[in-house]
Amino acid sequence: MKVVTCIAPVNIAVIKYWGKRDEDLILPINDSISATLSMDHMCAKTTIMCSPDFEDSKFWLNGVEQSLESKRLVNCLQEIKRLASAEPSNAEMLRWNIRICSENNFPTAAGLASSAAGYACLVTALANLYGVKTDLSALARRGSGSACRSIYGGWVQWHMGCNPDGSDSIARVIEPSIHWPEMRILVLVVNDARKKYSSTTGMNRSVATSDLIKHRACNVVPKRVTEMREAIKTKDFNKFAEITMKDSNQFHAIALDTHPPCVYMNDTSHAISDMIHAYNEHKGVNKVAYTFDAGPNACLYLLESEVAEVLSLINECFPSTVAKSDYLRGIPLNIEKSSDDLKFAMNLQVNEPNLLKYIIYTKVGEGAQVLDGDHLLTMVGLPKNTI
Amino acid sequence: MKVVTCIAPVNIAVIKYWGKRDEDLILPINDSISATLSMDHMCAKTTIMCSPDFEDSKFWLNGVEQSLESKRLVNCLQEIKRLASAEPSNAEMLRWNIRICSENNFPTAAGLASSAAGYACLVTALANLYGVKTDLSALARRGSGSACRSIYGGWVQWHMGCNPDGSDSIARVIEPSIHWPEMRILVLVVNDARKKYSSTTGMNRSVATSDLIKHRACNVVPKRVTEMREAIKTKDFNKFAEITMKDSNQFHAIALDTHPPCVYMNDTSHAISDMIHAYNEHKGVNKVAYTFDAGPNACLYLLESEVAEVLSLINECFPSTVAKSDYLRGIPLNIEKSSDDLKFAMNLQVNEPNLLKYIIYTKVGEGAQVLDGDHLLTMVGLPKNTI
Repeated sequence: MKVVTCIAPVNIAVIKYWGKRDEDLILPINDSISATLSMDHMCAKTTIMCSPDFEDSKFWLNGVEQSLESKRLVNCLQEIKRLASAEPSNAEMLRWNIRICSENNFPTAAGLASSAAGYACLVTALANLYGVKTDLSALARRGSGSACRSIYGGWVQWHMGCNPDGSDSIARVIEPSIHWPEMRILVLVVNDARKKYSSTTGMNRSVATSDLIKHRACNVVPKRVTEMREAIKTKDFNKFAEITMKDSNQFHAIALDTHPPCVYMNDTSHAISDMIHAYNEHKGVNKVAYTFDAGPNACLYLLESEVAEVLSLINECFPSTVAKSDYLRGIPLNIEKSSDDLKFAMNLQVNEPNLLKYIIYTKVGEGAQVLDGDHLLTMVGLPKNTI
Repeated sequence: MKVVTCIAPVNIAVIKYWGKRDEDLILPINDSISATLSMDHMCAKTTIMCSPDFEDSKFWLNGVEQSLESKRLVNCLQEIKRLASAEPSNAEMLRWNIRICSENNFPTAAGLASSAAGYACLVTALANLYGVKTDLSALARRGSGSACRSIYGGWVQWHMGCNPDGSDSIARVIEPSIHWPEMRILVLVVNDARKKYSSTTGMNRSVATSDLIKHRACNVVPKRVTEMREAIKTKDFNKFAEITMKDSNQFHAIALDTHPPCVYMNDTSHAISDMIHAYNEHKGVNKVAYTFDAGPNACLYLLESEVAEVLSLINECFPSTVAKSDYLRGIPLNIEKSSDDLKFAMNLQVNEPNLLKYIIYTKVGEGAQVLDGDHLLTMVGLPKNTI
């Protein structure tokens, strides 16, 4: 019997991944760049156990049993087992059934890139279980494209690569998390009533129908990647913020240029964007960057020195009646009252209450890790926590 | 003393105009195509009077006196007076002061292309006053780009032209209104709380900052214009609808790819779009096309045979508590109850009440016209109606 438990982080792209050139290998049409978020506040955790005594293989996600037949899960498992079989001593263990138990410490319903953390975690655990020593980012990519970036901490680039087998479509660290220690992230979780559709569906439809996506991938992103790497390396926040906001908007522009259109941002998302632009304009320089993934939630990048003022601003524009302890999560922090000067100068638009569900305050953190114990499965391969 | 009164229609583009290559001459970066809407329900009306007795020139719009100094108004006046001065007998009249009185028979606040109808009307009246015989579309263009398309009825193309002086940037009829007599338009006027910014501001910002707009203008629109002309000529509604919806979405994609982004559609706009896609999917063919201009209102193109069902559908999805007589404007029509089968098959999402202000039901109509009397000014050059 063998057991491994891992944790893996969420990452938030500043240059967006949108569009695949190979659906099965999950090869993207452009490079992307993200920051990995601290696992203190948001992470996936996975325990994998294999034993000659297990009569079957099973998989639980957040306490609910799942099929082991999903193509992406099968692809990850097959690829890791193929690599593991190169070592003859693995032969017996590879025949054993496995038990997988995975949990997120944040609501999956929030639409917060849970699959990236989940697959990065699964692959790290599996590779450890079978003693596979290879680049884990390429393996994680087979589960969910952006998962490859969650393997590493800090500022990470997913290189699209050019090999048909995807062997060079891997993530690499641009700078570690300590490089820009003042960087902070505020995740604004937005209340949303609209029907959701998956990013996979939207992405594939964009590649099939958007007349602009190729131009973005081939002509716009390469230049932005170079500029973004430079902005991160030189810690040029103003430039970093400009590219981050432009790229978020261009990704949503491509989604809208899809037929039928994919619309992920809602009126609240746009009201957040308006507020950030007004704040930056008031400051005369970009002090905050927003970015939106395939959902209405905003991720704000900003330096620690700005957090108190920006949070008070958010609180004025987006009043909440939720208890503070439930509303403000992550790094402990108080909401102060924003200055009347600022409110006046910005001609602030106050929205109706409770457009935001809650806020997570966090920072840039480390990549996927193996834990020493703290397993999610009992000795007989059943989940300790069930729903 | 001379007096002329004209009326001019609104037009709704199916291939959008967004971006100028010359701000003063108002020369666009791509061709556009629109239908001219019937003046029975929406039109601008302008009376222009000139007299040796007027001590000054004045201009009233919807009963409120306006400056005569606006650059676009000055450009229109100057150009027409320049052309008129070629005829020596005009010399005296050109020295007289003028009185201009203009009204829209629909709320300007609704954000319904009122400047297109307004400038088409002004230019038609001025040209008649001074006996200028030239292509009025090029003159109207100097007031508001899309005004050039309101000079003509039916299906109209604004050719971007290539001459630096703009002499070939003119509108031409593709087909007259009688060509497709079954075509109908439903204008859904949306309640909106967001701050508005003008299409001129947005357009200029897009040209300055969007990385996608050139690709749209040079590589996407020319092909769409050819396809749209063909769809109109052959009355291929399915194709017409597909291009119309794609082009509306691409225009809003470009607006979003602008820095800071321009967002004109709101959650209600997108809910309308979702409903139309669900309806078309249910029918297995495009039966309705939506298009959105620089605001949240939807214009739906559809054939008369579909109107009853689509209107009942709108009424189910967007319930209204407004009195029917005020809510449903334009061509008289009753709202029927939609079939339970349709509602069930489409898995309809019912929105909160009163997301729509009102609906205008209209059809394709004729271009700007000179009226025989019915002037808006008294004999002494003052508005008959004041606010």
